[in-house]
Amino acid sequence: MTESRAPRPGIVGAGQLARMMVQAAIPLGLTPAVLATAPDESAALVAARSLIGPPTSLDALRSLAAVSDVVTFDHELVDAALLRRLEAEGHILRPSAAVMAVGQDKWFQRRELEQLGLPAPAFRPVPDLAAVEEFAATYGWPVVLKARRGGYDGRGVWVVHSPAGAAEVLVGARAAGTFMLAEEWIAIEREIAVLVARRPAGEAVTYPVVETVQRDGICHEVLAPAPIATGLADSARAFALHIAEALGVTGILAVEMFVTRAGTLVVNELAVRPHNSGHYSIEGCVTSQFENHLRAVLDWPLGASGLTAPAVVTANVLGAPQTGDLMSRLPDALALPGVHVHLYGKAARPGRKLGHVTVLGAVIAEARARAGRAAALLAGTGGAEGSEEAA
Amino acid sequence: MTESRAPRPGIVGAGQLARMMVQAAIPLGLTPAVLATAPDESAALVAARSLIGPPTSLDALRSLAAVSDVVTFDHELVDAALLRRLEAEGHILRPSAAVMAVGQDKWFQRRELEQLGLPAPAFRPVPDLAAVEEFAATYGWPVVLKARRGGYDGRGVWVVHSPAGAAEVLVGARAAGTFMLAEEWIAIEREIAVLVARRPAGEAVTYPVVETVQRDGICHEVLAPAPIATGLADSARAFALHIAEALGVTGILAVEMFVTRAGTLVVNELAVRPHNSGHYSIEGCVTSQFENHLRAVLDWPLGASGLTAPAVVTANVLGAPQTGDLMSRLPDALALPGVHVHLYGKAARPGRKLGHVTVLGAVIAEARARAGRAAALLAGTGGAEGSEEAA
Repeated sequence: MTESRAPRPGIVGAGQLARMMVQAAIPLGLTPAVLATAPDESAALVAARSLIGPPTSLDALRSLAAVSDVVTFDHELVDAALLRRLEAEGHILRPSAAVMAVGQDKWFQRRELEQLGLPAPAFRPVPDLAAVEEFAATYGWPVVLKARRGGYDGRGVWVVHSPAGAAEVLVGARAAGTFMLAEEWIAIEREIAVLVARRPAGEAVTYPVVETVQRDGICHEVLAPAPIATGLADSARAFALHIAEALGVTGILAVEMFVTRAGTLVVNELAVRPHNSGHYSIEGCVTSQFENHLRAVLDWPLGASGLTAPAVVTANVLGAPQTGDLMSRLPDALALPGVHVHLYGKAARPGRKLGHVTVLGAVIAEARARAGRAAALLAGTGGAEGSEEAA
Repeated sequence: MTESRAPRPGIVGAGQLARMMVQAAIPLGLTPAVLATAPDESAALVAARSLIGPPTSLDALRSLAAVSDVVTFDHELVDAALLRRLEAEGHILRPSAAVMAVGQDKWFQRRELEQLGLPAPAFRPVPDLAAVEEFAATYGWPVVLKARRGGYDGRGVWVVHSPAGAAEVLVGARAAGTFMLAEEWIAIEREIAVLVARRPAGEAVTYPVVETVQRDGICHEVLAPAPIATGLADSARAFALHIAEALGVTGILAVEMFVTRAGTLVVNELAVRPHNSGHYSIEGCVTSQFENHLRAVLDWPLGASGLTAPAVVTANVLGAPQTGDLMSRLPDALALPGVHVHLYGKAARPGRKLGHVTVLGAVIAEARARAGRAAALLAGTGGAEGSEEAA
């Protein structure tokens, strides 16, 4: 009798991304430890091993690293200096502290993309209103203002149309101690995203290009595959792979891009972790982003990323004022045929991502209608009666 | 802000079936509690809520029931009298104590099937060798001897060809305190299995018919769909649904059947829980047996059971003398394209079910070759080199 010695992944953060990593870990024989700020966080509710502590504390990070063979991340809200310290102490971080520093800072991201010569909006750090006005004098209004890291009031991106609008955002940012970046506003046709999973040794797998449908800056739907020309999709995948290699990402890299009205690609943002745009992959791809993230950070062979159906649509379940008890409406959503429901165990609050639903189908329109209907039922924003088309 | 009130399933037992229920529970927003005999049991390794205690103890069962809104089962090794007591105390058991009493006792199963008039082998309780000889005088040798409940030496079924062989089994059974049943030996063409998921109110979903390939009485492979005529498959599904309704099963019922050399169906055994023959459903069906078991015991609408590919094959990973550290060979198995690996977190022992692999494909032969190869790699019984066909 031989005790099987499984590698021990540790996850900084315990949101829904960590929760879905914990789920994907089970068939691989793994039991990740999660570092949660509270025991009722999404992943802490389902993980067999949870540590409680803030991700901004060196002690808490060390506690996680001490019980982990490799440390990975649910979010970017960590201090890169602390991560470098963990690395100096001999702990293995995937992605590395250097990659996390880029992932958490939109200015660093822009400079990396600039160095790679990839198409991206013009950008400039804006310490004050004069800097915004100077930027607008060159690139015109509206201007996109972005928090370099994190954000405030739960937001990180504002589109402002005048000096007065910019001033208001800058006041809020200053109060929150948030540095800001101005970016050129681009007229877009649609938003797309590409995931890459990459191992330390370099093996990489690129996922299909998806369209992300945003409302009020929040992703509502993900359509796979994105309804764009093959040549454009191939370019998007090539860009994402190039970025993953240039940065030396290990694990999942998500690249958000715009398709401009002129029909060209512009790289928008990066995330060096599993991403909301990839939840469709749980049922919709041969290997989910969560499984491939774990395989990548453990330096195991990656799984195939092909679609399992001609059309896959994910709709996010976003809290609404009337959401209340999600669980009481779960049976209504499950009664819709072919709907895969994922709940995150989170209390309902307006705008909060509480879960998602994925539907596979022959064509996008049909899957989208059903996924939207199920998400609305769960959020309490859609009636139990009525046609799918009305959703 | 409303706290979501999720129902709390409790699972008696913490083997791989409970482990896969725990996994299936995560997207449904559920956190089952498992009753494990030791903290390193398969499901206890991954469950956020584990209780430690023997399933034969009323106190342990009460502890589980006290933190559960509904109690269900990983195995049948429980005392039906204790379960009836829990029900009398007001706890909800699904399946019920009465159904569990049938599920754990092959004599009760046979009598139920007899009352339903379904085709099944002749049977008789055999307290001694004289009873076996009398049975053989009517039905001929070989005779199938079965433990009424459980078994001994890790086995529950023996095929004996002579009074001497029967005597040997009966000595062992008597020493273990196991009651025995004699059954008519049937010349079979193949073995098949059908799962039914059924809600308390009666809604039921029947899964595709699969072929189970046994070696030495252990299931090695599951082929979906079973290569049998449509009419026969329809009959098998109708038999299984009829049994589920007649017994009043809630949750998954698995019905193992023989296709005889004469081309007819014979019902062999029942299990009133998720079953080894249904692991293929995790990737191979729209809704897995584990998700539908949870949905059924919570009285939620059931999910569709259709296949997600033309051919789905699961191969069990069985411990061999040379198995050793499964984890060290996991990367080799993951390197095979399209292989879904499920490890149970169990220490390797010869004959022990340590995991399974599932492959989806266009035709059974190809999926079977790859699944077999991956399982052999994991068990240490297949080389890393060589062709798939050789596996």
